[in-house]
Formats: sequence, C-alpha cells, structure tokens
Amino acid sequence: MFQFSLSPVEGQMMADPLLISSIIQYADRYHQDTEIISRRVEGDIHRYTYRDCHKRARKMANALAALGVHAGERIGTLAWNGYRHLELYYAISGSGSVMHTINPRLHADQIAYIINHAEDQYLFFDITFLSLVESIAPRCKDVKGFVMLCGGEHMPATTTLPNLLCYEALLDQHSDDYAWPALNETAASSLCYTSGTTGNPKGALYSHRSTLLHSYATVQPNAFGLSSREVVMPVVPMFHVNAWGLPYSAPMAGAKLVLPGPLLNGNALFELIEDEGVTFAAGVPTVWLGVLDHVDKLGARFSTFKRIVIGGSACPPALMKAYRERHGVDVIHAWGMTEMSPVGAVCALHRRHDPLEHDKQQRLREKQGQAIFGIRMKIVGDRGEDLPWDGKTRGNLLVKGPWVLNGYFKGEGGEMQQDGWFPTGDVVTLDSDGYMQIADRSKDVIKSGGEWIGSIDLENIAMAHPAVQQAACIGVYHPKWDERPLLVVEKRAGTALDKESLLAFYEGKVAKWWLPDDIVFVDALPIGATGKVLKSEIRKQFKDFRFSAEPVRN
Amino acid sequence: MFQFSLSPVEGQMMADPLLISSIIQYADRYHQDTEIISRRVEGDIHRYTYRDCHKRARKMANALAALGVHAGERIGTLAWNGYRHLELYYAISGSGSVMHTINPRLHADQIAYIINHAEDQYLFFDITFLSLVESIAPRCKDVKGFVMLCGGEHMPATTTLPNLLCYEALLDQHSDDYAWPALNETAASSLCYTSGTTGNPKGALYSHRSTLLHSYATVQPNAFGLSSREVVMPVVPMFHVNAWGLPYSAPMAGAKLVLPGPLLNGNALFELIEDEGVTFAAGVPTVWLGVLDHVDKLGARFSTFKRIVIGGSACPPALMKAYRERHGVDVIHAWGMTEMSPVGAVCALHRRHDPLEHDKQQRLREKQGQAIFGIRMKIVGDRGEDLPWDGKTRGNLLVKGPWVLNGYFKGEGGEMQQDGWFPTGDVVTLDSDGYMQIADRSKDVIKSGGEWIGSIDLENIAMAHPAVQQAACIGVYHPKWDERPLLVVEKRAGTALDKESLLAFYEGKVAKWWLPDDIVFVDALPIGATGKVLKSEIRKQFKDFRFSAEPVRN
Repeated sequence: MFQFSLSPVEGQMMADPLLISSIIQYADRYHQDTEIISRRVEGDIHRYTYRDCHKRARKMANALAALGVHAGERIGTLAWNGYRHLELYYAISGSGSVMHTINPRLHADQIAYIINHAEDQYLFFDITFLSLVESIAPRCKDVKGFVMLCGGEHMPATTTLPNLLCYEALLDQHSDDYAWPALNETAASSLCYTSGTTGNPKGALYSHRSTLLHSYATVQPNAFGLSSREVVMPVVPMFHVNAWGLPYSAPMAGAKLVLPGPLLNGNALFELIEDEGVTFAAGVPTVWLGVLDHVDKLGARFSTFKRIVIGGSACPPALMKAYRERHGVDVIHAWGMTEMSPVGAVCALHRRHDPLEHDKQQRLREKQGQAIFGIRMKIVGDRGEDLPWDGKTRGNLLVKGPWVLNGYFKGEGGEMQQDGWFPTGDVVTLDSDGYMQIADRSKDVIKSGGEWIGSIDLENIAMAHPAVQQAACIGVYHPKWDERPLLVVEKRAGTALDKESLLAFYEGKVAKWWLPDDIVFVDALPIGATGKVLKSEIRKQFKDFRFSAEPVRN
Repeated sequence: MFQFSLSPVEGQMMADPLLISSIIQYADRYHQDTEIISRRVEGDIHRYTYRDCHKRARKMANALAALGVHAGERIGTLAWNGYRHLELYYAISGSGSVMHTINPRLHADQIAYIINHAEDQYLFFDITFLSLVESIAPRCKDVKGFVMLCGGEHMPATTTLPNLLCYEALLDQHSDDYAWPALNETAASSLCYTSGTTGNPKGALYSHRSTLLHSYATVQPNAFGLSSREVVMPVVPMFHVNAWGLPYSAPMAGAKLVLPGPLLNGNALFELIEDEGVTFAAGVPTVWLGVLDHVDKLGARFSTFKRIVIGGSACPPALMKAYRERHGVDVIHAWGMTEMSPVGAVCALHRRHDPLEHDKQQRLREKQGQAIFGIRMKIVGDRGEDLPWDGKTRGNLLVKGPWVLNGYFKGEGGEMQQDGWFPTGDVVTLDSDGYMQIADRSKDVIKSGGEWIGSIDLENIAMAHPAVQQAACIGVYHPKWDERPLLVVEKRAGTALDKESLLAFYEGKVAKWWLPDDIVFVDALPIGATGKVLKSEIRKQFKDFRFSAEPVRN
C-alpha cells in the first residue's frame, strides 16, 4: 500500500511497524510503577501498575492462543472502564486478534446483531451483564465461549451459558512468557460499531497504524496534552470508540490512569477525582453536569482537577463557564466520530489569543476546534462545491486522514467516500483560522423557507437558562415555511418556567426568524446509548405535532 | 514493505501517507499569522508568517521544477538558520526531491566530497559562503547551478561560479500555484552526513515517514512539549541533523519560530530571546555557556525564557544548575544521533519524582533520559549478550525504531545492523526506569588494567570547578595499566588554577583509581564542526605524551 507517485529513491530508515503492543511495553519499561486505579464492578477500588497490567496482558495473550483464537478473529467485550478491560485491549490487539468493544446500553437485539455480524469468537463481560449475555447467547452463533471478568468467588452457581469461563482462572493457568508478534502495521486491531439511528449498526475497523498515529496526535500539547505529570480519568466508556483513545494515549504518555467502572454519577466521580488526584478527564456533557451539580450542592472545591475534554455533543456554554469561572477547571471542546478513531478536532486556544477579551475567548472555546495534526477538513455545498472558510458559510464537513475509515466493515454501510474524503454528516462553519463549529447534524438542520436554522444554537441558548436541564430543537412541518423550529424542554427539578419567559430569553441572541414557533415541556428527554439526546425519538414523538397559530414573532 | 506476520484481516482506514508537505500546509491553515523571525546574514531582522513561508515554498517548488529537478534528486544547502533555508526544507522535500543540508564548518575537501557523493544537482548557499562555494565549485561535478540566498542587490558583481542564480529573482519568476504531490511516505526526503572523525563522511537518508513520526514523537509533552503557546528558537543549526527536527516540529505545533542566523554569541542570542519572547530553545552546551556568561556579566534576567533542550554532548551539571537555580530556566537533556533523525531520548522528570530530594532530582537530570515513544533501547556486552538495567552496568547501546537508519546512503558506511538493532557506539548505563546515561563513546572509554573509566564523568567534575572553561579527558598509554586518564583543561579567562588544586577538587567525587594521572593546561581545546570538543584531535596532540611518574594517588 501507500504507492502514490513513487520517488525513485527510498529513504533508508528501519521498517519498524507501528504496533499497539509497543504502547504497553513502553509503559512497562519507562513507567513501571505508575498506577492504574479501577472502581470495580465488585464494588471496591483496585490498584496496580503498568508493569502488572503488561504481565497480565501477556498471560491473557497466552490464554487466547490456548483457546484457539487466531490472528484477525474478533473477540467481543461488554465491560465498563476497568483494569481487566484494559488488559484485553492489549492482549487481544497485541496478539493480532481484533478487540471488539460492544456498547451494553444498546438494545439486546442490536447487541446480538453486532456480535453475529462481527463473528465474535469469544465474549468477555463484566458480572453486571450476566443476564444480558444469557438472554442473547442462544442467538450468538459464532461465540465458542463466554468469559466473565471476575475471580472464582463471583462465578454464578448456575447459568444457561453453554461454556462459561472465569477470567482470573484463565489467567492463573497461563504463563507471562509471551513475545508480542511483529504484525503488519495495517492489520486490523479493533472494531467499533456506530449505533446509527436508522438501519443496522455499522462497523469501523481500526488498524494498529491508525491507532498509533491517533495516539501520537492526541497526546500533543495542542490536543489533550498528556504527559507523565497527568492523572487521567476516562469517563467516556471504553466500549464507546475506545474511550476516545485514552486507553492507548495515557499509557503512551505514562500518565496515571483512573478507571471509574460503572458508577458515573456526580458523587462517585467526584470522590475518585479527589481521592486519586485526577488532573484530566474526558466525557460527554451530561456526566459533567452531574459532577458540577454534586460539587455545588456540597459547596466543595476540586483540589487537583484542571482540565475536562468534552465531546460526543456540544458542551452547553453555561456548563463550560461554570467550570472555568467557579472552579478554575478548563473545559476543552473536542470533536470526533467513530469513523475517525474518534478524535478529529480539539479546541485549543493559542498564544495569539491571550490578548482577546474574555467574551471573544469564550466564543472561540464554544467552537469544536481545529483539526489535530494529521486530519484535514473541508466544507462543501450540496453539489460538492468548495465553500469559503469565513466563519459564516455553513457546509457539509468532509474529512481525510490516516485514522479516518475508508469503508465500513464488510462493506456494509453504503457508499461513503467522496473523492477520498469522508462525509461526516455534520453541517459546520470553518473560520479563517480553521476553527470548526458544528451548526447541526445535516439531518437535524431545520429548513425554513429555503434557509437553514441551526438546531444546536437554539438548544444552547435554552440550556443557558437556569431553569432548563436539557433542550432539544427539531424541525416540524409548517404549511408555509416547510419546517419551523419546535423546542422540547426538560426543566430543572424544582424550577418554574413558562413558554413566554423562555422565548423572551432568546431576545437579542438570534435573528427573530430563528425563534422557535413553539415550546413543549416534557418530563425527560430520551437519551441514547452513548449519552446523547435522541432526536430521532423526539421526532417520532412529535411527528403529528402541528403549530397552533402564527408564532410569536413580527 | 512492512510485511511481517500478515494478519488475514486488514484495518479499513485511509491509506493517507505521512508527508512533510502536510506540515507547512497545516501551519498555514491553522496558524497563518504566527510569525517566523530570522536574523539575516544581511544583518537585519526579517519577520513574516507561516502563510508567507508556505506561499514562497510553493513558488520555490515551481522554480525547482523549472530548473529541471526531478523527484529523488538531491539539492544541497550551505546556510544558517533563516527563513529562506526553511522555505527550502519544504520546497525541496515537499516536491519529492531530497533536501541535503551541508555543514559549512567542515573542511572544504570534505564539503566537496559530500556534494559529489550526494550527486547534488543544485547548491543553495548564504552570501557568507560565496568564497567557500567558489573554491570548491570546480570539483562539484554534478552541480548544474548555484543559487545565492539573497535579493538582486546582494548578488556579486563578478564570480567564478559558472551558473550563479539569485534566490529572490527565481522566486519572482514563479507562481505560488502549486499542488504538493502525493508521494510514497517511505520516499527519501532529506540527507545529512555524519562528520565522522575517521574515514569519509557517511550519509543518513531520511524518509517522509521517519520525519513525520520523529516530529509527532518530539512534540509530545514528555519530550520537547511544543505547542502554539511556545516561541521556539533552534540555535542548533539547520545544517546539523535538521536542527533536531525543529523546522518540522515547531510548525506542526504552530509555535512562533525564531531563527538566529549566523550570530550565535551570548549577546546576539540574549537579544533575540528578549526581543521575541523566546520560551524554548535548543543547542549544544558551549552556546548556552556563552549566553549565561553574557547574562551574568550584564546582571540581566530572562523575561520569558523557560526551557533549553541541550544535546550534542552532555551538559556540564554546573551549567544546568546555574540556569535552573539562578535564572529559573529548566535545562533538559536530550540525546540523539544523525543516524536517528536525531532524537532518541529526552530527560523528562515525572510526577512520581516530585517528592525526591533536590540532589536526587539533579542526578536524574544529568542522565541523558528515557527513550521517547517509538524508540527502543538495549545494552549489550562485547559478545552481544544482554546486560541488566540496573543503573550501574555499562554496555554498548543499541537502538531500534522507525526513525533509525537501516543503512548509510549508497551502502557506504560498513555493516551497521546487529539483528535489526543499530549500534550507537555509546557506552551507557540504563537504570530500572529506563533512564539512560552515557558513560562514554565506546572509542573514548579509558581502559585501565582491564577496567573501564568514563572520560565524561572526569570531564564533568572538572567543568564544575569555577576556573575551568572546558575540559577533555583521554586515555594515554601507560606501561603498567595499558591506559590511564589525562585531563586537558582550558581555563576560564582571568582565573588562576594549578594541577594540585584541581586534583584536590576530585576528592570524594570518584573512586581514587579513576583520578587523572596528569593534567595539562592549554589555551583552547579544539572544537569540531558540530560544536563538540574534538577528542580525536586531542589524542593526536598527545599521542607521544608519557606520564612522568606514578600519579598522585595511594
């Protein structure tokens, strides 16, 4: 591969492949005593080091070979963020098989579909998922055995699973004498399915090369800035696009790693942050809303916590400001997709932004950020024409780079390349410095009288209102304008709010013709398996909604 | 290439090659207004931006094509650190030719040899090198033309050069409409010769891939930690192993770049550091000694300067302490070789070292550091046997990695691989955390009665004495012990020092049998083309030296 315009002269450098196994080897060699802390499903806190992790990963690699697992075969996992899951990341990919992380929040039918589509040979799972696994096992035709991530004392007395093994017993049976194979760097290393809202889930099949380059790019100071001085807590699950690569990038940087297990509420996370001296964490906005609520209720302060990378969906500006201004915690926007490993952009401010006024800095931080080195972006119109980088023109975002997929697993996901560029499905602006801001998912854009209205802008304004917990804006049929915005709002517990005062809150913040035509209050917005508000569900709920009269705008 | 154990399943990620042109494209797109400052050979300070640099590099790429330069052909440069040299880095490598930087401090015969060996098609040079180039031109058989890095007003009225072109005139003739070609990432990109002390210079031929991976690895927080917040001044010359990669890594990170041109004295460098707000610089110890002397004489302070990476040779601990303790500037040891692009190790301290006592931290900082991610190391004995990482056992250092060469250009440099590892020629220790410390170059080790004495340790102690400017220690024939240490010392101007008091200074710092058998004071130590003390010259000078009597030790 990589045969483009061939130069007649090749460089004379070692053909040393980029391999995932080199990360855990490096962490062991150079950061042997650095700790990995896990909140276990069993309830307690587990502590060990990179050296221990590497040793157990080698044992597990021997165990996989003994189970008859071959290079390239997929091994499924249904597990929270914890040390055993981390060992599997290295044991499976490092030995040449494919680490297939599965999102347990999906519907059981989807999980069964994914396991069958991936042809998983074994399924490793946390004890919390035993009944889920039992319920789908009869449908998992390729799975030869099930491995529960626990010691013998937690194994069930009875089970309907045909071949249930104990993780710790497996480890005990094998030696740590294992040499990681010298694989082709373009070999498949891991597989994640996107939980699309329509159609079957689609698989993104990463390689060792793409994973290593993604790690190099994300540890950069302009991106996550990970070093051996940081204590890193991935709250984003390891079953969700490899926890944004942190299980690779944190060991590469020799950072202490804190894995929060299944408890993702504000109380549990704050406790870990304080007990373990967490400096850096990453997750979706809803999780950080929970932590903030908890800390504010306690009247507590963070002792060591400095930075949160927020992605998955845009961080409400109000949340960003609260962390920064009340707690001195820097909230950094990041943007990515399962199809790009996942990180594509990070919103770092540069030295040249230091003189900017506070408000201008904040508006910059609200953007999704600049492409990290290795990723290229462009915006195009509906006919594929290039659009200007002026911070105003909205276009379809295309991306390119060595950690962007060039096709879904088994070719099932439809045509997805445009002249070698991947269409993200996001409608965005790019400013003259290349800061990207998502206006909308292309399917969420509200098309009113031939013009586009960005649903995310309208949601962000609503969420800046102190009485609003969550808000979603969808386009609803309108006889005159084709579509007009309907705002669906979940109020904060114990607050009062009515339509008129929320509409008044928009005053001066958007053009009048962008104002929602109506507002509906609901008890709770539907949340999907990756923690995002499910607009597809809201659209279904309101498919027969009709605006009652002309909206409140002149 | 990279066909190792083939996995039956390939990842499905874009085959996007790692190319040098992507760096300047990125700096232009995302840091267009960030400045590049150059002290010109013409005497003034030149300022422009990454956008300007990219534009002129594209013009030069068109100029090269018009001159008939083909992919893979070598283009020589004899130039200081400046913006035109930087443009050539991108124009030449980016367009598929090979950037061949030549060290003007070498002897004219060696320069002519190198130009002929590389078959350079054109030679670009700074105006300071006109007479040098005129003197060697008749011997440069492949060079079709010479390009002087200046505007028309500086072109000589007469010259013996057969085809002398003007750089600015060339640029003026060409458009900036140029699309960087999609090369094979393993294509040759640049060529540096090592100025070995024996035999002919040997060429290290880098690839686009090796250069990009080296850049990713060096910008990491645990290595150079380069970001858009830094102002980076490479004092290490761009003709010396690509200025340790800074012409690539600084634009990748969007750092402001300060190029000091030909004036590398303390006065000129301090002026640039203060005027341009330099935060990070890199160079050999002698340069930083000059800056320190100047600043101390002035009684001045640094306003923005935070970090110096020192490599090339070990930094005397006294110099390291003076910067840290008197000026709050962190001196970071780095280690590398022309054969490894060049960075192999950086001495970063980790969070776990924070509780260490001051002295223990200092001893750690004096080591060359840990391999940066991507490089692997091991130490072996004279029969190739693996030696322990205990911080005590000295062995021959071998390295491996994607930016380590696998053979010299045209195969001329002898056998150099041992089972896929590159033998560095350094004798080192590795401690249990993988911190490497150079004991000596294998050829500089002093073999006394079958035991090794490290010349560098003896030099470092001498250089900690306030009256010592430079010191070099060599092994000299001894009838009983085979070799014994002779210390050759250059005193600081205006200080007094005699043998006895310097010998007394070693008391308690090394084993008695390590003490130099004699000390000789000289006016100046010989310095080579890369700024290092030339031990080969000192050995020649003292080849007939005989110790007068039994040394002062009991």
